Order: sequence, then C-alpha cells, then structure tokens
Amino acid sequence: MYADAVQDAIDELGRLPGIGPKSAQRLAFHLMKLPAEDVERFVNAISEMKSRIQFCLQCFNISEAETCGICEDSRRETGLLCVVEEARDIVAVERTGEFRGRYHVLGGAISPIEGIGPDQLNISQLLARIDSEQITEVILATNPNIEGEATAMYLARLLGPLGVTVSKVATGLPVGGDLEYADELTLGQALEKRHILEEN
Amino acid sequence: MYADAVQDAIDELGRLPGIGPKSAQRLAFHLMKLPAEDVERFVNAISEMKSRIQFCLQCFNISEAETCGICEDSRRETGLLCVVEEARDIVAVERTGEFRGRYHVLGGAISPIEGIGPDQLNISQLLARIDSEQITEVILATNPNIEGEATAMYLARLLGPLGVTVSKVATGLPVGGDLEYADELTLGQALEKRHILEEN
Repeated sequence: MYADAVQDAIDELGRLPGIGPKSAQRLAFHLMKLPAEDVERFVNAISEMKSRIQFCLQCFNISEAETCGICEDSRRETGLLCVVEEARDIVAVERTGEFRGRYHVLGGAISPIEGIGPDQLNISQLLARIDSEQITEVILATNPNIEGEATAMYLARLLGPLGVTVSKVATGLPVGGDLEYADELTLGQALEKRHILEEN
Repeated sequence: MYADAVQDAIDELGRLPGIGPKSAQRLAFHLMKLPAEDVERFVNAISEMKSRIQFCLQCFNISEAETCGICEDSRRETGLLCVVEEARDIVAVERTGEFRGRYHVLGGAISPIEGIGPDQLNISQLLARIDSEQITEVILATNPNIEGEATAMYLARLLGPLGVTVSKVATGLPVGGDLEYADELTLGQALEKRHILEEN
C-alpha cells in the first residue's frame, strides 16, 4: 500500500515499545509533514544520544563516561546500594532527594514468561560489588508488580547469607491518593503492612 | 537530571504527536538499550523516508515522484474526486476497494480554535482542479467530527454553485458493531439518516 521508504519507517516506528501499527503510521505521516530540518534535528538527537551514552561499568546507569556521575561522586554514602530494574528508575529515586548511596541497575526483572532468568540480569556484578565495595545495606527498589516482587524475593534470599542488610521499599497507599480510589491489591498491602501507633 | 544528549533526544521524542514526557523518556531509554545498528537502522529509515517522499503536486498525497501513483494511473475514473483531510486517509479509502476516482488532500480541517481557516488548506488547488479536470462529482470524506463536518459544510457551499455534484460519506452505525455499544451521537445520526425500506 505504501512506498517502501514509508513502509520501512512505519515498521521501524512500530518496533518502539507502546507504539502499535496505527500509531506508527500516524507518526510517520507526522514526520513526512514536518520541515526537513526538524526531521534532521530529530534523527540527529537520537543518533547523538546513542553515540554519546554508554552504560556505567560499575552500576549500569546511563553515562557519558565509563563510570557514571553518581558512582564518581565521592560525597555519596559508601556501603549503601539501591537496586533498581532500569536506569530510568534511578531518576525517579534521585528526584525524591531521600537517597544518598549508590545504585545498581539489574537491566530488567526475573520473568519466566519472557524467558528472563537471574543469569540475564546484572546479578553477578551486584555480588562482586557487595564484596569489593564493602556494602552493608542493599535497598531493593524493583517495581511493585509480580516480576519485580519475584526478583526482590530472589535477591533477598541470595544476599541474606552474605551478611548484608537487605531492605525493600514500602508498598501502600500513594501519598495524596484517595482511599476509595485505591485498587484492592494496594489497599490490601497497606492494611497488611500497617504501623502500630499505640499498642495496648 | 539527564546528560544533554539524553535530554535533547527526550525533548525531540516528546514533540511527536501523542507522546507525552513520560513516554518520551521511556522511548529514549529503550533506544539507548538497543544495539547501535538497530538505532542506526531506525534513524536511517526515517531520514530515508523524509528525503524520498514528497507531496504530489496535484492531489497532495505522499509520493516518491512529483505526481503520485494514483494521479498517474490512467485506469482511474476521471471526473470524480474524493476529498480527504490527510494523506493517510487515502490509504483507508483505498483499502475499501470501493473508490475508483482520484483524491484531493486538504492538509487538515477548518478549526478556528487551532487557527486553521480555509486559506491554510489546499482549497484553491481543489477549485482549480474542478475546472481543469472537468470534475462532475466531489465526495467529501472529511472526519466525522466537528472540524471535519464544518469543513464539509464549507466546501459544499463553495462547490455547489460550480455545477458539480457534492456528496458526503454516510455517518451511522459501524458495520459489525453492537447497537448497545454505539455512542449516542452515532446512534442519533443513524436514526436521523434512516433509510425507508417500505413506505405506506
């Protein structure tokens, strides 16, 4: 139906996560209508990002150098690691301003359905760091879904015998949320993980 | 928060229609994780499409040549034009296999809110074609929404005095749909535009 040049671009756009065939077609037509210099700026920005950015050799965060700014920052607390699934999760934790340690990016979560086992994740590198950096606490900040929870459980069992404290970020009601709009799993977790304010 | 190279790519991705800041971030991280050759193929496909494709001088369809394949096709019925808002709408009409005339792409619809008036659309070129190609019928296939309907009304009034038949594609219940799931506007239109099967 389309010229090859158009179909190829639609196919490539459709390979992006969350972009279905209809959206890919829409994006392609949008790009065709844009001035040539805008399209050039678009593709250059992506090429530039890809050529400049690598993954930190230590924590697998995105980085412009061999090791990332956080790993290089000597003001960061040593001995404390926050384990996340993806590099983009680091940004979310950093925005809280609540964490002063360093990170370790797993590169995903254990998912038997997608064929991702512990060997496909950066777990051996995590174990090496616990040893070489004298880590005392590992905070697990995997996603609060089935894969993330399974990964956290796996890591807790793996790291427990190594003598490090293993903690997991809390699940419960989102701050500013409405109880009546909370989904039943979240509310269930919030009830189960309740804090005792006064004991009698 | 991000290196410039990453932020620039996120900004560019976020300029695409329907891609918000969160999706743009997700897409950027996806592209960073891809092998370099996949990213190269992605950007090349888009550059290639942009450099190869132009808009048909006659109907404004996308085309690899100065005039598009449909305008060049001598088996197409002459004297019959289907007016659409965007070039991608041509694909939708072509898929039906029901239309054997040629097209005219307006390049949008009249929308006072977005500051798009008749002068921003390819309407003068449509008038010129009606004259030079001896058009006898113009089928209006603008989108069945406020802007599309307003554009169809405008064109009907403009073209009526020129002595061409002006028709509009039907609105009504989608084929294969359920009456109970039809929205009230569509069902309202379907009732208003009912066909009389037996008159008494």
